Amino acid sequence: MSGVTIDPRAAGLAPVATGLPDVEERVVLPSGFRALGVPIGIKRSGRPDFAVIATTGAPAAAAGVFTHNAFAAAPVRLSLAHLAETGGGGPAGSGWADGILSTSGSANAATGAEGDADQGELARSLATALGTTAGRTLAVSTGVIGTRLPVDLVAAAIAERIPGQLAATDEALMAAARALMTTDSRPKWATVRLPLPGPNWTDVPVTVCGIAKGVGMIHPRMATMLAVILTDAATDPATLHGMLRGAAARTWDQLSVDGDTSTNDSVLVLASGRSGAAPVRPGDPGAAALGRAIEAVARSLARQQAADGEGATTLITCQVTGAADDVDARGAARAVISSSLVKAAVHGRDPNWGRIAGAVGNALTAEAWVLEAAGLAPADAAARAGLPVPVEPERLRITVAGHPVYAGGPLQFDRAEARAAMAAGEVLIRLDLGAGDGMGEAFGCDLTEAYVRENSEYTT
Amino acid sequence: MSGVTIDPRAAGLAPVATGLPDVEERVVLPSGFRALGVPIGIKRSGRPDFAVIATTGAPAAAAGVFTHNAFAAAPVRLSLAHLAETGGGGPAGSGWADGILSTSGSANAATGAEGDADQGELARSLATALGTTAGRTLAVSTGVIGTRLPVDLVAAAIAERIPGQLAATDEALMAAARALMTTDSRPKWATVRLPLPGPNWTDVPVTVCGIAKGVGMIHPRMATMLAVILTDAATDPATLHGMLRGAAARTWDQLSVDGDTSTNDSVLVLASGRSGAAPVRPGDPGAAALGRAIEAVARSLARQQAADGEGATTLITCQVTGAADDVDARGAARAVISSSLVKAAVHGRDPNWGRIAGAVGNALTAEAWVLEAAGLAPADAAARAGLPVPVEPERLRITVAGHPVYAGGPLQFDRAEARAAMAAGEVLIRLDLGAGDGMGEAFGCDLTEAYVRENSEYTT
Repeated sequence: MSGVTIDPRAAGLAPVATGLPDVEERVVLPSGFRALGVPIGIKRSGRPDFAVIATTGAPAAAAGVFTHNAFAAAPVRLSLAHLAETGGGGPAGSGWADGILSTSGSANAATGAEGDADQGELARSLATALGTTAGRTLAVSTGVIGTRLPVDLVAAAIAERIPGQLAATDEALMAAARALMTTDSRPKWATVRLPLPGPNWTDVPVTVCGIAKGVGMIHPRMATMLAVILTDAATDPATLHGMLRGAAARTWDQLSVDGDTSTNDSVLVLASGRSGAAPVRPGDPGAAALGRAIEAVARSLARQQAADGEGATTLITCQVTGAADDVDARGAARAVISSSLVKAAVHGRDPNWGRIAGAVGNALTAEAWVLEAAGLAPADAAARAGLPVPVEPERLRITVAGHPVYAGGPLQFDRAEARAAMAAGEVLIRLDLGAGDGMGEAFGCDLTEAYVRENSEYTT
Repeated sequence: MSGVTIDPRAAGLAPVATGLPDVEERVVLPSGFRALGVPIGIKRSGRPDFAVIATTGAPAAAAGVFTHNAFAAAPVRLSLAHLAETGGGGPAGSGWADGILSTSGSANAATGAEGDADQGELARSLATALGTTAGRTLAVSTGVIGTRLPVDLVAAAIAERIPGQLAATDEALMAAARALMTTDSRPKWATVRLPLPGPNWTDVPVTVCGIAKGVGMIHPRMATMLAVILTDAATDPATLHGMLRGAAARTWDQLSVDGDTSTNDSVLVLASGRSGAAPVRPGDPGAAALGRAIEAVARSLARQQAADGEGATTLITCQVTGAADDVDARGAARAVISSSLVKAAVHGRDPNWGRIAGAVGNALTAEAWVLEAAGLAPADAAARAGLPVPVEPERLRITVAGHPVYAGGPLQFDRAEARAAMAAGEVLIRLDLGAGDGMGEAFGCDLTEAYVRENSEYTT
């Protein structure tokens, strides 16, 4: 299990075995990277809004997964185009990179050809400052849709601060994490350290560290919101991309705050190879370990995003066991954490199993590309996509915050005790479908008056 | 266009031409039916909770569409089984009926075999009272999930009141509409009167009148919530079923309040044939007119449900033109009215086109069975289901409450005037995708703090 604590009161039903290593919620900068995060005045609030993450030497292997929104923002289109330029014909979304530019406060989405031109100009500025080519830069951005980036302001900040103010310190990457934020109440970071095979049959310590932002406009559809994961492991872009897609399918694709999918969602992973560990390729002893480490970081970041969901007071984790397979289990879990009525019931500390049953009774499997990312062959993914998840009411069992509430029919339970158990910062809902060995989980948050206020009173 | 008024300030983009007749928001009981609606004490509040609608003579042709929830309630299962018994091998959900029992306050969902037995016992009581067979009775119910029906109470009410207190008056059907309600703030009804060919080449006046309840747990997936439509037109069950499925695909399947689909959704249509009009069969001169009348009533009821959505202050109508076809248009419209961020923005009177663009950029076509109901051949429906709706940002145009806000890029507009226009009880959002002649619409409501309060403070 991950180091992110699961409420231990989930008696009655078995936990989902993720097989993932422990995660520390802190930043440890992997070797081979430098970072910077500062306010430059894009946001009127004066909060940090400009970040750069760069390699220290040779380019890093890079992989990304991005929003499927038709209004994909200029930074998304630029990152995809640059990865295609440097990827040498590998999978779309994999290539090589020397730097990432992050601007927050303006999404540079729905800004047309001008928005693309703005983003291209900034890529050239960053490349000049870093002594690389524009094609080896990537970009992420979030904020208000439909406003242009203040290009002169950002270009001046690049020229003035890069590379001089980049620092190879944990604090610099923490500052970058803060500069990604928009409506987040706190920065999100996670680190896994693991040994990978090095030269001469020795193990070499490797670091995987991720930072993320995003607490609204979050719903499963490939990547969700912004995250950057850095590692000093060595691997090639295609291998890294495969690891990222699989990890995203089980973590960010299982995260919903409000059913909306952003125009700017981007998750980037960069591997500098500077740890000294041997390059990892599929099938190598270290490949599974590195993949699990990336997934553990992704899972921790996704859970931190759900817990900090706009207006949220409670993280909702739904773990499903006993499904016919993992595809069904993930669909069932996602249906529960996406239900407005379940979210409102958790906010009211109401162990309302009827709403949970109603939600899982409507569960659908994910879209084909998510199933492919999770490891299904294309034909199988197409055949399994968007289908109702079979749920037999007589076989279903449900626990809420450790209290068994339904087992083929309503159970007697101590409602006051269950309500008290739901007052923790995390409510764990477990379902067993009684059909097979499939398991999966999903992450969401409660629906509160504060969510409505935040999103009705301010333009975002 | 329907008689339900569309905000006339939607300048700039053409309305969606529904081709539907005018609707009156009142009750006119069609001939051949009797009704009753009273409180009998299922609800502790003392509000009406018991209704019966019955034929006056020969059985009525009957058709129903129902929830696809795996936790389909006992009344749903009973209605489907009884229609199968009487349908003579016609389409599932079509047959003959003499009466409908409605109980509110208890959903009789997730109550297992006991719940089915309860519903069966009440069907036999109703059949005895009406002098028919149990198989010719149907049932609808909504309320708390997981509680048993008070069978003795309901059976006693049937024995005491049926048939003596049934009345063939408009007021009696209005009382039945009130007895369907749970969290509705007002009853919902709609009537269309139309001429249909009668004997001797004369036209005969025919009435189509619908009543409905349901303001939460509403999301597109075949039928949504409870509605009963009565007509004195004459037709066979299979024809009636075809008309209902098509109407539901363009009305209730395009309605979302909160993304949750109920365990009890049922829409029933009964045709008594007592108007004296000639029986309507597919291809007859009257078939298209009757189908449009049923759809007009369905559309009016769906709009009344959206306007009365839990906690809602504003009806949101999204009309989409210029799509490649109607399937894409309906998917685009549904994505906009389902978006929590769009719903919250409408609540805040924020003409936030960025959120509308973000939502339509993620639009998907409906599931296969909805597309089949809308008239696609099964193979076409399977091929088109669940696909992204192509949206080209350069071709998209958006108006909000009559104000053009986006046309291939952001437009300058008077934000204060747009905000003022959004203060009406209905906000009309129009999109033109610039791709073809497809059009469609969808209905939703704003997301408010009151929705969260209603659903976090009370068990439903």
